[in-house]
Amino acid sequence: MSGVWGNNIKLSIFGESHGKGIGITIDGLKPGIEINLEDINKEMKRRAPGKNKLSTPRKEKDEFEILSGYFNNKTTGTPLCAFIKNSNQHSKDYEKTKNFMRPGHADYTGKIRYDGFNDYRGGGHFSGRLTAPLVFAGAVAKQILKKKGIIIGSHIKSIGNIEEGYFDEVNINQQILEELKNKEFAVMDDKKGLEMQKKILRAKENMDSVGGVIECAVLDLPQGIGSPFFYSIESVLSHLLFSVPAVKGVEFGAGFNIAQMKGSEANDEFYIENNNVKTYTNNNGGILGGITNGMPLIFRAAFKPTPSIGKSQRTINVETNENTTIEVEGRHDPCIVQRAVPVVEAVAAIGILECIES
Amino acid sequence: MSGVWGNNIKLSIFGESHGKGIGITIDGLKPGIEINLEDINKEMKRRAPGKNKLSTPRKEKDEFEILSGYFNNKTTGTPLCAFIKNSNQHSKDYEKTKNFMRPGHADYTGKIRYDGFNDYRGGGHFSGRLTAPLVFAGAVAKQILKKKGIIIGSHIKSIGNIEEGYFDEVNINQQILEELKNKEFAVMDDKKGLEMQKKILRAKENMDSVGGVIECAVLDLPQGIGSPFFYSIESVLSHLLFSVPAVKGVEFGAGFNIAQMKGSEANDEFYIENNNVKTYTNNNGGILGGITNGMPLIFRAAFKPTPSIGKSQRTINVETNENTTIEVEGRHDPCIVQRAVPVVEAVAAIGILECIES
Amino acid sequence: MSGVWGNNIKLSIFGESHGKGIGITIDGLKPGIEINLEDINKEMKRRAPGKNKLSTPRKEKDEFEILSGYFNNKTTGTPLCAFIKNSNQHSKDYEKTKNFMRPGHADYTGKIRYDGFNDYRGGGHFSGRLTAPLVFAGAVAKQILKKKGIIIGSHIKSIGNIEEGYFDEVNINQQILEELKNKEFAVMDDKKGLEMQKKILRAKENMDSVGGVIECAVLDLPQGIGSPFFYSIESVLSHLLFSVPAVKGVEFGAGFNIAQMKGSEANDEFYIENNNVKTYTNNNGGILGGITNGMPLIFRAAFKPTPSIGKSQRTINVETNENTTIEVEGRHDPCIVQRAVPVVEAVAAIGILECIES
Amino acid sequence: MSGVWGNNIKLSIFGESHGKGIGITIDGLKPGIEINLEDINKEMKRRAPGKNKLSTPRKEKDEFEILSGYFNNKTTGTPLCAFIKNSNQHSKDYEKTKNFMRPGHADYTGKIRYDGFNDYRGGGHFSGRLTAPLVFAGAVAKQILKKKGIIIGSHIKSIGNIEEGYFDEVNINQQILEELKNKEFAVMDDKKGLEMQKKILRAKENMDSVGGVIECAVLDLPQGIGSPFFYSIESVLSHLLFSVPAVKGVEFGAGFNIAQMKGSEANDEFYIENNNVKTYTNNNGGILGGITNGMPLIFRAAFKPTPSIGKSQRTINVETNENTTIEVEGRHDPCIVQRAVPVVEAVAAIGILECIES
Repeated sequence: MSGVWGNNIKLSIFGESHGKGIGITIDGLKPGIEINLEDINKEMKRRAPGKNKLSTPRKEKDEFEILSGYFNNKTTGTPLCAFIKNSNQHSKDYEKTKNFMRPGHADYTGKIRYDGFNDYRGGGHFSGRLTAPLVFAGAVAKQILKKKGIIIGSHIKSIGNIEEGYFDEVNINQQILEELKNKEFAVMDDKKGLEMQKKILRAKENMDSVGGVIECAVLDLPQGIGSPFFYSIESVLSHLLFSVPAVKGVEFGAGFNIAQMKGSEANDEFYIENNNVKTYTNNNGGILGGITNGMPLIFRAAFKPTPSIGKSQRTINVETNENTTIEVEGRHDPCIVQRAVPVVEAVAAIGILECIES
Repeated sequence: MSGVWGNNIKLSIFGESHGKGIGITIDGLKPGIEINLEDINKEMKRRAPGKNKLSTPRKEKDEFEILSGYFNNKTTGTPLCAFIKNSNQHSKDYEKTKNFMRPGHADYTGKIRYDGFNDYRGGGHFSGRLTAPLVFAGAVAKQILKKKGIIIGSHIKSIGNIEEGYFDEVNINQQILEELKNKEFAVMDDKKGLEMQKKILRAKENMDSVGGVIECAVLDLPQGIGSPFFYSIESVLSHLLFSVPAVKGVEFGAGFNIAQMKGSEANDEFYIENNNVKTYTNNNGGILGGITNGMPLIFRAAFKPTPSIGKSQRTINVETNENTTIEVEGRHDPCIVQRAVPVVEAVAAIGILECIES
Repeated sequence: MSGVWGNNIKLSIFGESHGKGIGITIDGLKPGIEINLEDINKEMKRRAPGKNKLSTPRKEKDEFEILSGYFNNKTTGTPLCAFIKNSNQHSKDYEKTKNFMRPGHADYTGKIRYDGFNDYRGGGHFSGRLTAPLVFAGAVAKQILKKKGIIIGSHIKSIGNIEEGYFDEVNINQQILEELKNKEFAVMDDKKGLEMQKKILRAKENMDSVGGVIECAVLDLPQGIGSPFFYSIESVLSHLLFSVPAVKGVEFGAGFNIAQMKGSEANDEFYIENNNVKTYTNNNGGILGGITNGMPLIFRAAFKPTPSIGKSQRTINVETNENTTIEVEGRHDPCIVQRAVPVVEAVAAIGILECIES
Repeated sequence: MSGVWGNNIKLSIFGESHGKGIGITIDGLKPGIEINLEDINKEMKRRAPGKNKLSTPRKEKDEFEILSGYFNNKTTGTPLCAFIKNSNQHSKDYEKTKNFMRPGHADYTGKIRYDGFNDYRGGGHFSGRLTAPLVFAGAVAKQILKKKGIIIGSHIKSIGNIEEGYFDEVNINQQILEELKNKEFAVMDDKKGLEMQKKILRAKENMDSVGGVIECAVLDLPQGIGSPFFYSIESVLSHLLFSVPAVKGVEFGAGFNIAQMKGSEANDEFYIENNNVKTYTNNNGGILGGITNGMPLIFRAAFKPTPSIGKSQRTINVETNENTTIEVEGRHDPCIVQRAVPVVEAVAAIGILECIES
């Protein structure tokens, strides 16, 4: 029940941060879909570490190898498995502190859950590194959706308390999303983006970390996607989003703000124009009753600050059962939000594909 | 894929607002569990409409009948099915406006999704009335959890822009939750509660509606519950929560606020006391790496204002394909937040039971 | 995991033989399908008890009530729930012998599995009566398949050691199946049928029972249905067939006989005729690699003799933990094969629909 | 829905016969289980080709590499993925005949199912080679079951029309199963075994092939395993068995023969001895109502003759749409029954583990 997800598009994820590698099997892809491996590579690189001083110096090329389900450059319709070897491991960094539970990490809960047998090195199966196979699967899903005219993109809405504007929930368009995709730091307002980056670097200097919010839009979705009662679009997407390490909040459309509106403000009034049914506003984020209405699907995910920080923190030693302190060494990101952008898009693509194929 | 949920505790929900009735089958309950029907009734009444002027005057007794899986006052271990007859239907209210798509409702998306064949009367399968079977299932789950010492409770955190304080995320206790359960309007601060109720009544007078936020706590959970990668506690709970009509945002622990913290603030430092491992703070809401750490599990769900309002709204007539206006008649709630409190607790109970039984 | 089945067409079954009733929820039906209730009734009657002296005198009208998912004579696309009330219960018959484990029945294993809390009256959830909801679901599935031109029919291949010929696996046609459907005792060779019925009546006189084999054919299936590796047509159908009480063997095409053939005999050679690809023989029963090839799909299911017999049998008393004897009283069938014919067709229809909708 | 199976123990299989390799991810294993890799290797070798003149000369070492979920010689509780590289491929053998549909194979149905995009080389995903990952998973399951005292073993019941006796369904014991496991040709009666082998070699000489039946026993199962209605032991095991290429029949206990018995013969009468409940006979194969009763679980699977034969067969050319003939070249087995013995045991082990963990 843990590593397998989905009904129509089934994912089966595996791997650990410092084991042989990580991978994913995607079951349920239609046969004959041409897959552009270079485009997958681009998505992998958007997430890959070691690109600049904003992220961890651990260099992983994240080169994937397709082990099955792909023949003559097309999907076969049978399970597509991709594997990413681990290369740049400093596993010893983790050996000496394995009994010191890093605050904010899954060290302690993982130990309890798996009776102490889980691979603790670098977070093991809990590592953010497991999002690389997700990005692979998402890149495949994105290509399939793109052939159907569906576009997914996102921006960094905030880093710490620095934030830029929301997407225009009615008029957000493909061009804006494409521009964001090509930016190393995905903001609409580059000035704000610089402030955000400064915020990250300052945290890094202070041996601290920061979090942030990513806003994502899915455009040109067909109307009528989503299956209440239990498989509302929101249920499917939030399920996947909350599987991504560090996500602590998910909201659709106006989200938590809609709770402060009146019905007369929140309701998106309908109109018809050239035989297309639209809404004047989009507080529901393109979803009504768990089903798409054809307006841009918009959601936000809140990421907590990277729990790995150099600052001294109080914690426990599970071997001695004593209170102690820890300074987390090893290589880590002062902020993972900018690297999480393609991850959010990936799970959006997977979730949407799942709903469309049903 | 739509009406069935779960791996260990499987729910199968059915019914429409103005059909014969609504119900749910719960599969996977252990045999021999004594179920207190009176306690289920109490939960049903917390949700039931028509209790006071804050809610719709539609009077539904929401009396359930157990059709199977229950023998000699105990669960049999085979599927438990409960049925709730619809009684107080004014179906004709909906007939005359069936082509007028109510803004904020699933009328339009449901019509598209089900090719126009769905039962449109009173929202049909999309009706908030479908949460009654959920409350039934949740009441059963709650009783099972209570036998394990696990307590679930919640309060209305806000109505519109009126809000009371958060739960104390470290010290929230059983007594507070029990007191809340016995209140007709579940707030900790009754003065704030009165303001909230005024807000609701004012909206009603204005033929408008308001939304709000519910905060829920689960106490005395064992450590080590939850199954990453894909079945984090957050994934399981959010999946269910976003199936509840009107929910547009879900957050755990500090939620969206954690994105503004530094790592050194957000990380919950561990300590050991009398052989119990605890954290000084609880920004992660009792969940690390998708697994419970034994601290109170805390989450919030944002509810949009009831879409049914008497005010005139712009919309479309799907028969004539023309723009038009609508004033939603029939009986509706100016706010569903106070009635949603037991629903939020119910899905929390179901989700937790699912995770514990795995 | 027990009462729920399927991925695309999800069944959720519930009920006990002597409780309030039995029922089923079918999830995943497309909206707008016209359902002929009279045709469902006919199928229900084919299975219903009390029709003649070959079956139990328990008279159950097996009248179903559709509780949801059906509006204006069509499916809505949301879960379709049907309920069948129990009426003619003699529950007391079972009370006095509840500690005597009936040989061949699930009394003992059910007691162990459910810690003694299962409803033991008349087999409870294990009763053959639970096949009535299956027949309902199958009747719906059959109607959907028929609109696609797919026909399902079957005959009693044998009762005890009396057997008639196999279906002609290449030339079996719709007319033969229709004729069988209209017979009270579904055999192709009526003379053999009379012998079979005599066999049943003789068993009845001797306070004994007999079993038999049902052969089923599905005609005009599209080619290419079935999803290896794990969802071969054989896997899906056998899964359902072995859920039917009393089935102990399932075989496709030549079945166990194919194990005695040479490859050159067993292989069904292909030919093309008027652009249709066919095979000269059909030892594979219309399935190659778990996928339909367009030839008639043919399978057989072996039913054991009804375990309820009047003859004295050795058994145990679970209260006293002593060896004892039992003569099973109450009303029971000397043979359930003839009543199982529509059940076999029903699960075939459900399984095929599941595979077609994927 | 195709490559993923299971609720508690989830399998995700991938790979093709002539691609990079084949593999499986096993999700849901408990943490901390010591796995003996040498024992897995032994199971792999029981299935591996190229051992003697009875099987295909294709030499595949079937060396597996564990990619995840295994740490310090124990399961971690997170997904266990194993990969087996393909090495000895003669893919060109298949290129020239790719338009000639081999009778009895999935060439034609696979082509239809996957719109011609499946990897046709050597049967691709349909190849019997895919049973190697199953044997890996089964070997892991066997080790886990063995720690619980549960033993699985089997024998070749027949090859063509040469057959040896059945297992003694009441007294079959661990010693017999162990002896069978160590035989290269798994029969109880070695004289009959020699006849069977001659039968295979004669078929080989004649460029033909033969099939056979495998009988499997599971000993010392706890009582009370299996979850009706839909997850009877028979349903779970048959589902997996019919996923194994070439299986066309499955029966439990007396199987098809039980249909010829009277109730008074078929019913297994109970008795109690030293507080153990047993049955005098075991016609139900250790299963009543889909649940184990503690007697030996016994089933048989019928395998068709290898479809690949050198003899000339009529078939079609899908490129030219013409009737033609084919002599299947390449390396193939004159009989796969002897190699299927560990496969049958593997799926039995997986199925039983799935049922026990529920």
